[in-house]
Amino acid sequence: VKVVLDAMGGDLAPEATVEGAALAARDFGIEVVLVGDRRVVERELARNHAAILPITIVHASEVVSMSEEPVEAVLAKPNSSLHVGYEMLKRGEGDAFLSAGNSGATAMAAMVILGNLAGVDRPAMALPVPSGRDHALLIDGGINVEVKAFNLVEFAVMGTAYARHVSGIIRPRVGILSDGAEGFNGNDLTRSAAVTLRAMAPDINYIGNITGRDINRGTADVVVTDGFSGNIVLKIMEGFGSFMARELREFLGAGLRGKLAYLLVHKRVSALQQRLDTSELGGAPLLGVNGVAMIAHGSSNARTIRNAIRTSAGEALVRQVNTEIVELMCKIPPGARPAIRPAGERIGALFNLLRERLVRMEAAPSK
Amino acid sequence: VKVVLDAMGGDLAPEATVEGAALAARDFGIEVVLVGDRRVVERELARNHAAILPITIVHASEVVSMSEEPVEAVLAKPNSSLHVGYEMLKRGEGDAFLSAGNSGATAMAAMVILGNLAGVDRPAMALPVPSGRDHALLIDGGINVEVKAFNLVEFAVMGTAYARHVSGIIRPRVGILSDGAEGFNGNDLTRSAAVTLRAMAPDINYIGNITGRDINRGTADVVVTDGFSGNIVLKIMEGFGSFMARELREFLGAGLRGKLAYLLVHKRVSALQQRLDTSELGGAPLLGVNGVAMIAHGSSNARTIRNAIRTSAGEALVRQVNTEIVELMCKIPPGARPAIRPAGERIGALFNLLRERLVRMEAAPSK
Repeated sequence: VKVVLDAMGGDLAPEATVEGAALAARDFGIEVVLVGDRRVVERELARNHAAILPITIVHASEVVSMSEEPVEAVLAKPNSSLHVGYEMLKRGEGDAFLSAGNSGATAMAAMVILGNLAGVDRPAMALPVPSGRDHALLIDGGINVEVKAFNLVEFAVMGTAYARHVSGIIRPRVGILSDGAEGFNGNDLTRSAAVTLRAMAPDINYIGNITGRDINRGTADVVVTDGFSGNIVLKIMEGFGSFMARELREFLGAGLRGKLAYLLVHKRVSALQQRLDTSELGGAPLLGVNGVAMIAHGSSNARTIRNAIRTSAGEALVRQVNTEIVELMCKIPPGARPAIRPAGERIGALFNLLRERLVRMEAAPSK
Repeated sequence: VKVVLDAMGGDLAPEATVEGAALAARDFGIEVVLVGDRRVVERELARNHAAILPITIVHASEVVSMSEEPVEAVLAKPNSSLHVGYEMLKRGEGDAFLSAGNSGATAMAAMVILGNLAGVDRPAMALPVPSGRDHALLIDGGINVEVKAFNLVEFAVMGTAYARHVSGIIRPRVGILSDGAEGFNGNDLTRSAAVTLRAMAPDINYIGNITGRDINRGTADVVVTDGFSGNIVLKIMEGFGSFMARELREFLGAGLRGKLAYLLVHKRVSALQQRLDTSELGGAPLLGVNGVAMIAHGSSNARTIRNAIRTSAGEALVRQVNTEIVELMCKIPPGARPAIRPAGERIGALFNLLRERLVRMEAAPSK
């Protein structure tokens, strides 16, 4: 398996990305292609004594920064590490592409270069969150801020296919994140998506609305939400997790009693922290594009990148996910689609998406 | 101070509400009026040996249940404890009304009977969430599922007035909950509200977008969001909090090491749990209505009700909040209002709201 890594993407790139690649190659024997500024990457590789490792470099002259507007960046920089990396994937010169960079641009470039899977309107990020004894999949984790009801339906489809083939759950329980049980709760989007998902039984195992309280309880295997709420959910968990970690450190470190208690349970505390820390999983798939595109957290360190490379290699081996997504997309009742779109109109859809984004950019308040 | 309590509202009513009233009267000397079915309330009072306490009963023949659709309930049950309680407040026979019942119906009844403050379109619930060394105010905590940009602006106004007069913060920092820093993040609502809030300096101390990660960090004193996201935020914190509590119990209770560690730090663990447990604060104000309306958690036990009665009595003493809300509402730039509404058109606004809700009820999928 060959993983193509965006060497220039992420808050700690290129140091963390190149070191992570060296760790993955050394620890797991995974072949890694580093895409980025050749001189910079070579310098970092030398620092990591990586000469004998299965790592190659492919040059990309441009870099998309973390703060660039995705559409602008993708249109303006055709020689970025994102473009070069996805083009490699498209030509079959790699099995998975991984970036810890600008996630909006990473998703946009995947749509432009790899293209969406047949029937898919909006690809989405599927993120594992701690739930019950294991993890649940939150989709969309932050790519699509404004969505239509149809998009929630396709997120459910993509999450189902992924949970089935990657997590090995035969009938993944799908819940829509809402403000209460069904009936009078929810907004127009969630209510409309629920009608469609209910009609898709038994292909989709829709269990109804779930609330924020249920996410960590193991109630659902796939938690469907728009990217705006999904981002808030993830960041609250991050923030609340570190708030709790701070508090724990405070009373497991203060005074003799605290220090003694820490000595007694520190292994269990670390185990808990590790479980909460999704960086152990490393990366999250961007589902709905024609290939294996993986997104790592912007603040990924070398260890996170190493883990994400392992995850990416694993996902590349599970080729049925995209086939199943396409099959399940066909089962969405035709009436649930926002508009009938002839096959091959992918460019038109992309154009519309770009136009939407451009309108929003123009409407953005100037600082 | 006289607190009017909905004796019939909440998952554990009337046992928990009446016991809570007895506790509050006994512990704080607060005068409580219990509104509900006289026979039921008398029976509960007898069980609590409350004969010498400053508690009176006012009969209400109807009860709004937790699962009723708010508009339907308010229209169909003019003799409910909600109606009777708010009518008392309106006639000056009480200083604050508190209910742990159906929060949607509680808010709706407040709008219908007390009326909105001048200029207010949608009252909202302001909930304290643990943040930094203290609490931040999350507004709206779940009343308004669909909002306009103007509503986010008025939530900022109400939160500012409340934080200033009740929490004593002179220039409360207001942030809009979004998916990233300003610029290209946010949705149409948050971007549009931000423009208005920025124009309201120095009356509103708007500090920009904040993310889910910042809520517990003490970054902002007032966190503005729509009721859909607000509900998700609160329930995730509840869910994640009990997830963490479970994990803590697990490793502070298992084996000799765990039990020993627990003995050493159990006081600090309880202190942390108490800080996370907003039931200690008891209730949250419904801001934007003409009076002091307080909402307690549906699962409130007697102790929570006791605390909420104390909070309600305290809020009733801070009469400047509503005056300040009205003053600040006048400072919203006229262009930011969704439509010009002549004074006194409150009934029309309410009618529109009812119609919206009815349309949604009709569109609700039948189970």
